[in-house]
Amino acid sequence: MRWKCTCSYDGTEYAGWQKQPNKLSVQQVIEDVLGKLFKSPAGIQGSGRTDAGVHALEQVFHFDRDWKHGGEALVKALRALLPKSIRVESAVAVGDDFHSRFSAVSKRYQYRLKLGEADPFRWPYCWEVPASLNLNLVEAAMGRLVGKHDFAAFAASRGAGLEYESTVRHITNARLTQDSECVTLSFQADGFMYKMVRSLAGTVVNVGLGRLALDDVDTLLESKERIPLVQAAPARGLFLEKVFY
Amino acid sequence: MRWKCTCSYDGTEYAGWQKQPNKLSVQQVIEDVLGKLFKSPAGIQGSGRTDAGVHALEQVFHFDRDWKHGGEALVKALRALLPKSIRVESAVAVGDDFHSRFSAVSKRYQYRLKLGEADPFRWPYCWEVPASLNLNLVEAAMGRLVGKHDFAAFAASRGAGLEYESTVRHITNARLTQDSECVTLSFQADGFMYKMVRSLAGTVVNVGLGRLALDDVDTLLESKERIPLVQAAPARGLFLEKVFY
Repeated sequence: MRWKCTCSYDGTEYAGWQKQPNKLSVQQVIEDVLGKLFKSPAGIQGSGRTDAGVHALEQVFHFDRDWKHGGEALVKALRALLPKSIRVESAVAVGDDFHSRFSAVSKRYQYRLKLGEADPFRWPYCWEVPASLNLNLVEAAMGRLVGKHDFAAFAASRGAGLEYESTVRHITNARLTQDSECVTLSFQADGFMYKMVRSLAGTVVNVGLGRLALDDVDTLLESKERIPLVQAAPARGLFLEKVFY
Repeated sequence: MRWKCTCSYDGTEYAGWQKQPNKLSVQQVIEDVLGKLFKSPAGIQGSGRTDAGVHALEQVFHFDRDWKHGGEALVKALRALLPKSIRVESAVAVGDDFHSRFSAVSKRYQYRLKLGEADPFRWPYCWEVPASLNLNLVEAAMGRLVGKHDFAAFAASRGAGLEYESTVRHITNARLTQDSECVTLSFQADGFMYKMVRSLAGTVVNVGLGRLALDDVDTLLESKERIPLVQAAPARGLFLEKVFY
């Protein structure tokens, strides 16, 4: 019996989603709790990794275990055992052909930017950017990224040991919104390579700060390799918003 | 030269405002930073204590040190040295007769209540209360507390070793407001005894949950001693909002 679960988490205290030796990961905490609930070790499969310090509004994972009491009771049982920094939002029984990672068709991330200095309560959840940021330029730079492009320039350097069959991705949506709290940059794509969303955000913000020209975005897309113009934004303001199936 | 400073802090990680042996307090962190800045130990005097886990939007403290570069530069220097969980908001040179504690004429605290369960990002900053809370009853209970009363029932038990010359305090304002995020209860008084605001909030919420009757509030005010009806609310949703001079 396969369960599809969604969860939100405050990534501040975690070494990211992915299980790693000697580090506290979100995956590890959830697996430990499932192990207690089912009284035997349980592995879960997430839709993808999030870096250390990155938050999630809706991460998706699945696991296989028999449970006769329904999704709501499973959510309640997991909430009772999990720390408050991780919250299971839903649990639904799905077919065996569902796979949290391979069935995903797109993902949306959001970066929350605080123009100027953040107060102690908002600081863990935003990226502090100089108040001189030109939002029109940021929006224009985001517009250049939309579409199907080779995003090799925005993938992590080969030093990270990651190889991709293709570095072409399709950004279907890139939007800037603003409320009284912060400026939010959201990026939706059919897939994100390692550090890609942080590199995209770092680049459009550098355009908005006048450190890069708008045309540099095109140059990067055409370069097909990582060049020093690309700076990754910090993890702190980044949220995995939604995984689409 | 006396400096009056205001600061905000996320109290989650701290053992409260007040310096204590072997515990990390907000006061200690600020004094350590001042010691570095002035290259000699510096003591500060706060407007009053806040308990472990309680936050502050605007706590006030003063200290005596010569500094020739003005308040703005002092704020900048302190911000550069302080952790992000503590933020100095202002620094103003004042006369020697100003005292952060003894010059204060009133204080306002606020409790942030989340009806139902909080998500991982709001949890550190609110008190989760059952969604069945009757806000009209809470408001009515708050109304009974306004005025000059003997609040002995709402002060910490004598076990805490605290003695007060008088347990009469004047609550000048008690207000309930609500936005999309939370319900906020604010209490302003000429002074608060140890655990008083947490006991007031615990009581009015118990009225709103039907665990206490509205008339029990009057009974408590008349009792002039702590009785088991009074339960203190948790520290997590409590903010010191403002100190008035």
